[in-house]
Amino acid sequence: MLHPRTLFSLRPIECGFHWYSTKSTKLAAGTISVSQEVSNKQRLFFTDPISPGSIFFLPNGAKIFNRLIQFMKLQQQFKYGFQEVVTPLIYRKSLWEQSGHWQNYKEDMFRVEGHDNMKEEYGLKPMNCPGHCLIYKKFDRSYSELPLRFADFSPLHRNEASGALSGLTRVRKFHQDDGHIFCTPEQVENEINSCLKLVEMCYTKIFPFSEDEGYFLELSTRPDSYIGNLEIWNHAEDVLTGILKKCGRSWRLNEGDGAFYGPKIDIKVRDHSGKSHQVATIQLDFQLPERFDLRYKDRDNTYKKPIVIHRAVFGSVERFMAMLMDSNRGRWPFWLNPRQAMIIPVNTKTTEQVKKSHALLLKLRGMNTNDDLTPIALNSFHFNAEVDDRAEPVGYRIKDALMKNYSYLIIIGDKEVETGRYAVRTKESRELEHLSTDEIFSKFCELEKNYA
Amino acid sequence: MLHPRTLFSLRPIECGFHWYSTKSTKLAAGTISVSQEVSNKQRLFFTDPISPGSIFFLPNGAKIFNRLIQFMKLQQQFKYGFQEVVTPLIYRKSLWEQSGHWQNYKEDMFRVEGHDNMKEEYGLKPMNCPGHCLIYKKFDRSYSELPLRFADFSPLHRNEASGALSGLTRVRKFHQDDGHIFCTPEQVENEINSCLKLVEMCYTKIFPFSEDEGYFLELSTRPDSYIGNLEIWNHAEDVLTGILKKCGRSWRLNEGDGAFYGPKIDIKVRDHSGKSHQVATIQLDFQLPERFDLRYKDRDNTYKKPIVIHRAVFGSVERFMAMLMDSNRGRWPFWLNPRQAMIIPVNTKTTEQVKKSHALLLKLRGMNTNDDLTPIALNSFHFNAEVDDRAEPVGYRIKDALMKNYSYLIIIGDKEVETGRYAVRTKESRELEHLSTDEIFSKFCELEKNYA
Repeated sequence: MLHPRTLFSLRPIECGFHWYSTKSTKLAAGTISVSQEVSNKQRLFFTDPISPGSIFFLPNGAKIFNRLIQFMKLQQQFKYGFQEVVTPLIYRKSLWEQSGHWQNYKEDMFRVEGHDNMKEEYGLKPMNCPGHCLIYKKFDRSYSELPLRFADFSPLHRNEASGALSGLTRVRKFHQDDGHIFCTPEQVENEINSCLKLVEMCYTKIFPFSEDEGYFLELSTRPDSYIGNLEIWNHAEDVLTGILKKCGRSWRLNEGDGAFYGPKIDIKVRDHSGKSHQVATIQLDFQLPERFDLRYKDRDNTYKKPIVIHRAVFGSVERFMAMLMDSNRGRWPFWLNPRQAMIIPVNTKTTEQVKKSHALLLKLRGMNTNDDLTPIALNSFHFNAEVDDRAEPVGYRIKDALMKNYSYLIIIGDKEVETGRYAVRTKESRELEHLSTDEIFSKFCELEKNYA
Repeated sequence: MLHPRTLFSLRPIECGFHWYSTKSTKLAAGTISVSQEVSNKQRLFFTDPISPGSIFFLPNGAKIFNRLIQFMKLQQQFKYGFQEVVTPLIYRKSLWEQSGHWQNYKEDMFRVEGHDNMKEEYGLKPMNCPGHCLIYKKFDRSYSELPLRFADFSPLHRNEASGALSGLTRVRKFHQDDGHIFCTPEQVENEINSCLKLVEMCYTKIFPFSEDEGYFLELSTRPDSYIGNLEIWNHAEDVLTGILKKCGRSWRLNEGDGAFYGPKIDIKVRDHSGKSHQVATIQLDFQLPERFDLRYKDRDNTYKKPIVIHRAVFGSVERFMAMLMDSNRGRWPFWLNPRQAMIIPVNTKTTEQVKKSHALLLKLRGMNTNDDLTPIALNSFHFNAEVDDRAEPVGYRIKDALMKNYSYLIIIGDKEVETGRYAVRTKESRELEHLSTDEIFSKFCELEKNYA
């Protein structure tokens, strides 16, 4: 049995990020109002007292949410060797007793119970690791299977105090881009390096949060109240320090602030007010394999204990969305924008202009409305395009589309109908490019492929 | 306030299928053992007493599960105009009182409660409709917005008796390809026709369950204990009958078996033993708009009540998977197969053969392991390929791959290395086709695009 404090401190490690640490998670009031404001303008999400702290994602918000998850699934699965699993949301009390949550995390968990006579008691999961341990344990594992990397996008629930709930940042239901790596001690360095590479790609290339510093790293080392073997601790800290020194990013030492069963690397970004927020995290765990009695058969036919690495790159997808909105103020990059293109016929009384507008719309949306038995193909492109053919002056409709943050405006007048080449402009520049339907479609495909 | 029986019978309508009706949902024992057997061979899923009735999808099972959902999202969104939303899983008791579940459905629901002092009481959702009504109600709706079609793939929980739990077919946690259409009375016919078209595409073209009959339809009409206006009932039944007569499929009358707030069309398929099972359902609901006081502003500026259509095409995705396995016995079509291609170097001691095998593997998987900052592109193709370079005779490895139901075998010997054209065969035929890497990749892309 572990020291009670061990159990207590399972929290941050298993969260994938310090959900509960007010120090790092409370976003500046400005951040909250920015994402709220963006949402109100773009109809992204809302909350309701009927389910405090649970987000209702409206269609536009669900598009961004799904797109972020799609991006992360692709990277994890086809660049970093993760395998996605789908796991239960409620588990009997005995699992949470084994993991230590029932004794120490109970106040933050939701209890679930049937109304029937059985009155069985369950816990609604606040994190995925116990479920992944069960999958690991389900089969005899050999050294040749390791590292084994499970990804999971399950909804998680934590019973945050209702007074603390706010927008996307302090919620009770959220999703992590969660992953657990089961590996040998020799594999730890490689695995953490891979995690850092994915973090780097995300936070420099795909989601550049700030031009000067971008993201930064913190190493949290052995606390006074550590448990376990000192030699293992020193080795683990040496490994993490070595990795950080080689990684070429600025990093800080956060001495004595590790979880006491293992050191960790936290990744932080700054909001518009300069305040830093933890997003990604990479945490070593020597205790979970112990609690769940995990093992693998090594080359020498003896059983050994794997090490578990908890990692999340976005952290909470909901909170990551709030950080994105804080940074982009609703000006989404093309690939994430629920409003990618507005098609505007100059003269809405000219049937031909309106007809061409709607034909272009179908093509850009990748819709197939004619043939009932032909399905929409897998991996096809579909853009969030609309037509504004309201009986309003063209200048008014252009201004309206710009205000609504459409990435592209496509204007169709008589000349455009005649030539079959439509006038395309970005929201940033008045410069017009004249492109055919196929050219517009290809241009948009390229933008999405490159996460532009 | 509705008659208590109304509330009770919200159940089947809101399920999207008759989850609780032993008449239609209890699969033949054979069906259960078939899917269990396929799963054991292919490591698709398992259950554990720690969470009775909740499925753990292993990586191969999660691939099939995700692929089915991906297929349905594409069709719903880009062919049938649905908008996906993401909604909470727990709602305060008062919502379930408003919907009538608390009084009448309570025994089948899980109760959720915080461990804190607040002791607020929630219900874990067994269905999505109340959440969709809240989204509808969140904004003032105009006739010009209708029909409004929401899609949702949330996990749902129903407290089935533990004795009844079995594999994928009788579960406590499941996912529906759920959808709710809010429309005017005039739009009902068109909307139901669209639903039937999607059903037809699925059950004839994409998932052909049986060669003779395929799927069949049943119209369930006004029960003795109906509520509401007789004229509306007659009109609704006329509409459904008219649609069924025109649809060109065999259908039966199931007289007096409708829910008593509206008639419905159930879609059924047969398992290998000839037993029929309900899969899809399309149900008219005049009562839910009443309970949630839904309205829209019509052309004449008066407020009117929309009609709600509940529909699901797979029904429960878990149960649909069991039906697929009953029908295909683990021989998945290429696009759904977690084992799409096995690459076999003839001589595993020939470095060149093994090297080419692994190069082909990376190409087919669409992996990018070299450049850290280049992400995997959106909408790219990734095939479930493996290499078998174990030091076993080639005949043994071919037999093993055939037994494991790989769709394609790709054999690489000296001649293949020399010409750069590899020997490709299906699991069904020994005939070899010699194709280059690019040709194999294109062939596989075409197969997936066409759901072959």
